[in-house]
Amino acid sequence: MNTTAQVPAGYRTLETASLANWLAALPAVRERLGGAPGRWTAREVGDGNLNLVFIVDGPEGSICVKQALPYLRVAGPSWPMTLERAYYEQAYYAAVAPHVGAAIPHVFHYDPDQYAIVMERLTPHVILRRGLIAGHRYASVGQDIGDYVARAGFFTSDLAEPFERKFDRIARFAGNTDLVRISVDLIFTDPYFEHPRNRHTRPHLDRDVAALRCDAAAKGAAAELGRRFLGETQALIHGDLHSGSIMVTDADTRVIDPEFAFYGPLGFDLGAFLGNLVLAWCAQPGLALRPGERDAYRDWILEQARAFWTAFHDRFLGLWRTAGHGDAWPAALFREPGDGAALESARRQYLDALFADMLGYAACKMIRRVVGFAHVADLDDIADPARRACCERSALGIARHWLARRREYGSIEDALAALPEIAAA
Amino acid sequence: MNTTAQVPAGYRTLETASLANWLAALPAVRERLGGAPGRWTAREVGDGNLNLVFIVDGPEGSICVKQALPYLRVAGPSWPMTLERAYYEQAYYAAVAPHVGAAIPHVFHYDPDQYAIVMERLTPHVILRRGLIAGHRYASVGQDIGDYVARAGFFTSDLAEPFERKFDRIARFAGNTDLVRISVDLIFTDPYFEHPRNRHTRPHLDRDVAALRCDAAAKGAAAELGRRFLGETQALIHGDLHSGSIMVTDADTRVIDPEFAFYGPLGFDLGAFLGNLVLAWCAQPGLALRPGERDAYRDWILEQARAFWTAFHDRFLGLWRTAGHGDAWPAALFREPGDGAALESARRQYLDALFADMLGYAACKMIRRVVGFAHVADLDDIADPARRACCERSALGIARHWLARRREYGSIEDALAALPEIAAA
Repeated sequence: MNTTAQVPAGYRTLETASLANWLAALPAVRERLGGAPGRWTAREVGDGNLNLVFIVDGPEGSICVKQALPYLRVAGPSWPMTLERAYYEQAYYAAVAPHVGAAIPHVFHYDPDQYAIVMERLTPHVILRRGLIAGHRYASVGQDIGDYVARAGFFTSDLAEPFERKFDRIARFAGNTDLVRISVDLIFTDPYFEHPRNRHTRPHLDRDVAALRCDAAAKGAAAELGRRFLGETQALIHGDLHSGSIMVTDADTRVIDPEFAFYGPLGFDLGAFLGNLVLAWCAQPGLALRPGERDAYRDWILEQARAFWTAFHDRFLGLWRTAGHGDAWPAALFREPGDGAALESARRQYLDALFADMLGYAACKMIRRVVGFAHVADLDDIADPARRACCERSALGIARHWLARRREYGSIEDALAALPEIAAA
Repeated sequence: MNTTAQVPAGYRTLETASLANWLAALPAVRERLGGAPGRWTAREVGDGNLNLVFIVDGPEGSICVKQALPYLRVAGPSWPMTLERAYYEQAYYAAVAPHVGAAIPHVFHYDPDQYAIVMERLTPHVILRRGLIAGHRYASVGQDIGDYVARAGFFTSDLAEPFERKFDRIARFAGNTDLVRISVDLIFTDPYFEHPRNRHTRPHLDRDVAALRCDAAAKGAAAELGRRFLGETQALIHGDLHSGSIMVTDADTRVIDPEFAFYGPLGFDLGAFLGNLVLAWCAQPGLALRPGERDAYRDWILEQARAFWTAFHDRFLGLWRTAGHGDAWPAALFREPGDGAALESARRQYLDALFADMLGYAACKMIRRVVGFAHVADLDDIADPARRACCERSALGIARHWLARRREYGSIEDALAALPEIAAA
């Protein structure tokens, strides 16, 4: 274990041998696992780079324990990482739990000294990104995530509640600067100029990357979206809602890993999911074992993107109409004849702005995954660099198009229908 | 004294008799006042409704002590007020002091138990609002305040510094909810519907007020500006920058009373000052002892408004060009040939948006002073209700025009040149 990072005195990495004893003190865990703690078995299943993850099985059920490690070893050199991210992860779960039902794992316990979250084990769920790479369909994943972002976003905004509650949470999550710094650097800054952390498929994409870094309009759009990332407190956002932060079965969809949470623009979560769907769409030709094999699956991905935005839009609008009790757009102002139409028009504008934000942030997320530090398995799994570069080039083209034209699309259908032509250009 | 409000155990209202003893422990105060503490004289000069204000004179100088009272007795019924506002006032002073030079009073000491700020006594300064009512000219007040808002706003934004420092201050000032609640209710909510706290010049303005409250577009604009008041963390704002929060001499301009400070849209401070200048402009015909007496003075007021925006614009732009070292619009992104033009274009858009915000927030501030709870002396000093109503009507007309057209003006000159015609309509 890397011991160079500073850790609090009471912090110890958890071990399988002693885990049952530690958990036995938690009544909710005893109930879930059943039987005597001596009959529980624990195994470590994390990759050890970022968190320790234990599965603990008992006679009646199983649970998951996630403990933060004080470093991130993802790219060779040691990169210390704050343990506090475990605090923000469970704080996000606690904030949205009343509003999103079972769309997040149930949290049994948080241990602030061990930075460990004891939570529901999701089984037989798989990571959505792996499912998309394998070409599996999940009937309602787009709709489920759209509904999720609408609920989590609406109920933590001041459309829903007095601003005092929002300000209280803003203050709490404003401490999550170590994780937000990662987003600022890796999403909104480094990809747009030469930086040693960046990488791309060489030499195939050299010209494309050079063109992006000379595209002042694209850089300006990314900078403007980055400024608003740090300057708008629209809602409590997950902060990393890509397809690797979603676990699925054929019938269930769950959101995990919200350690990047803070108060920011809701379009950032929308764009994270959409952008990663579109990355998966771009990757399919490279993942196909024979030409055309994934064509129908690509259509299914776009259908999920459409269902995602539609579900978000309809749910958010419905909540605003029925539960808009907050300080923003106070209902008391709009009770005269004719006010209803003005209010509906304002709601449309609000959702139109979110739509443009979604395309813009999706573009930023796609670009960083092709030319920045951390890439995605959808593309990295394409072994042949020439094939991979071809897929990546289409992702870059879509992203640059969306950065420039994000306010020009009137509907999700129009935006998605244009993708094949943009990707081929 | 009203003792119904909860106050901390150690809190005692300060008294003139014991003040010198208390201050004698502060070396900087001893130096300022000079001589032995026994020779210092203290007198209470506040109106006692909101704060105790003491002037303490010594052989070599004088200081001011401002202590928060736990209530606001301004309109009859007892209205408890958090003592913590004193904390936020001194925290604002501390945050902007490195950037605004002597434009704020020097703070010698803050006592967190007594909620008391010991600061420079401003003399022979007068409150700008009183000067405007009296028809006095202050050569550089518009320019000074424009420069002030630019410096305080720029250096507390993430154009200037790493976002971590901004987030830290956002968290601190997010606790100032009691004061922000006053702004939310009295500026963005109550004036737009029937509320017992509201008042207006009756019956003269009855129709105008009814028309405002049926103007769905105006209410929508106010609601949108109110939403952004709570949802943007552009800069640390003063939060109450009207002409009553500014003290002036012929040669000096000082900003005081920042207890409403929090992270919000910079246009709110810009609009507070501009709106109150325009209220003063509207009031002049009512304050004139004979027709035309104040015509030239009105032109001077508009000239100050022009100088205010121009100074703000030029200073803010200059700072961005030379000190834009923050995480928003990171300089590292714009080092290729051609990037300079894109960056300048983005800066123009940013300032254009601030200009529209200024007009919009000015309108909100003007409306609440004519039809809401707390009015301004500029208008209240006009004894004859018919004359007063005539001035107030022109203020309402300008405000509604700005709410609807705030994005349509290309320059401060155009916006100001249109005022006489709008006011007369």
